[in-house]
Amino acid sequence: MTIQIHPLRGFPLVRPGDDLVSLILQSLDHSAISLQAADILVVTQKIVSKAEGCYVKLDEVSPSDKTLDLAGRLGLHPKRVEVILRESRRVIRAQVSPGLGRGVLICETHHGFVCANAGVDESNLSESDSVLALPRDPDASAGRIRSGLLDRTGMAVGVVVSDSFGRPWRRGLVNVAIGLSGISSLVDYQGKKDYGGRSLAVTQLAVADEVAAAAGMAMGKLELIPAALVRGVAIQSDSGRAAELIRPASEDFFRE
Amino acid sequence: MTIQIHPLRGFPLVRPGDDLVSLILQSLDHSAISLQAADILVVTQKIVSKAEGCYVKLDEVSPSDKTLDLAGRLGLHPKRVEVILRESRRVIRAQVSPGLGRGVLICETHHGFVCANAGVDESNLSESDSVLALPRDPDASAGRIRSGLLDRTGMAVGVVVSDSFGRPWRRGLVNVAIGLSGISSLVDYQGKKDYGGRSLAVTQLAVADEVAAAAGMAMGKLELIPAALVRGVAIQSDSGRAAELIRPASEDFFRE
Repeated sequence: MTIQIHPLRGFPLVRPGDDLVSLILQSLDHSAISLQAADILVVTQKIVSKAEGCYVKLDEVSPSDKTLDLAGRLGLHPKRVEVILRESRRVIRAQVSPGLGRGVLICETHHGFVCANAGVDESNLSESDSVLALPRDPDASAGRIRSGLLDRTGMAVGVVVSDSFGRPWRRGLVNVAIGLSGISSLVDYQGKKDYGGRSLAVTQLAVADEVAAAAGMAMGKLELIPAALVRGVAIQSDSGRAAELIRPASEDFFRE
Repeated sequence: MTIQIHPLRGFPLVRPGDDLVSLILQSLDHSAISLQAADILVVTQKIVSKAEGCYVKLDEVSPSDKTLDLAGRLGLHPKRVEVILRESRRVIRAQVSPGLGRGVLICETHHGFVCANAGVDESNLSESDSVLALPRDPDASAGRIRSGLLDRTGMAVGVVVSDSFGRPWRRGLVNVAIGLSGISSLVDYQGKKDYGGRSLAVTQLAVADEVAAAAGMAMGKLELIPAALVRGVAIQSDSGRAAELIRPASEDFFRE
């Protein structure tokens, strides 16, 4: 079966408290798309965070002495760094990049995701601004969108909350799944044989990340298209969670 | 525009010396797909390596004392380890995984890609077997397929040679681009503004990897579908190279 990826066009600006399900349905309508069973809706973290009001007002943030020191060393905005540290379980790297000419913070978020700035947005800030953090529980966010769409259309679709992450070893950002509902995170080929009859040794495919990356092709990074519908990928599941995509240190041999 | 991903069905077993362009055209025909300008054909590394004869006969391999020691320590086949080391510029990690109950080798290939076993295949081996290595120059492999398809159909399509790589921090394999021709590896949003009018800080998208991941959804890992056509992604370029996707250590802050 052909897989289709439909960008959702005409998506309005999202504001705190907006009902994302209504906006998604409007945008599907505007894009002349009817939901079908087994469709997977991919939405960017940014619109989920905006709708959920995951803003932190910088004038309410008081950087600690430690943060002031770190921000000074990295040439970063101290209040923004304070928010990043609050969103982090630990800091993986904090240093000035000669190439970028500015400081870089790579963090492990409280969810366990490793990404730049703990997912806190990267815009130029003035004192009056807010920054936007990742959703508290992106699987729950995806679940609420899935339930809302089921209630209002009768269609049980999968939902992925995606974000663009940098990664070790390879350049460039790719879209990955940070929350999901109604689909598998991983598909396991354990015990399966390839078409030469040999057992497959490495067997888990990160299908939710492949769906997110595929949707990334349709989304464009200027955020004009913050959602896309992926049709034709049969990975429905009631038990998938994005946390399954986090590789525990004990089995992570890909770190240097 | 809707993006479409068409699996190429009915792909025959590939043998050394086979003309991949002919097999691709047969399979497109079998799948009732006509090439269009700006299509991107994604083919697995495995069929490219097979067609190019990248086999190493194990009975012609003599492991060094160092290799015998390493293979013994990891519980791996010494001749296979010898081939992996030959294919590697350096070994990132070599240790026994308690979870897997066997040794794991994470290597940087001569191309600069970081992956398990330097991309040398993972099947159960007997002494009479061969192992299959990555293509010598996957961009050149992609370029030959692109040229062949242009000669025989008049269509200038993009070509990606893909492989499934594990990665740090996140579980599961994802399909990535290890060779490409006719498309960009990265798209740079430097200087662009988001729809709030703010400058984007992190700006390079790994579009070739997103295309490879998207095709991965259609391919299935049992290798019954070793090629897929991605339609509707406008990233044509005459100068893209997969090496651009390799992040130099000096700018890699995502390593621990």
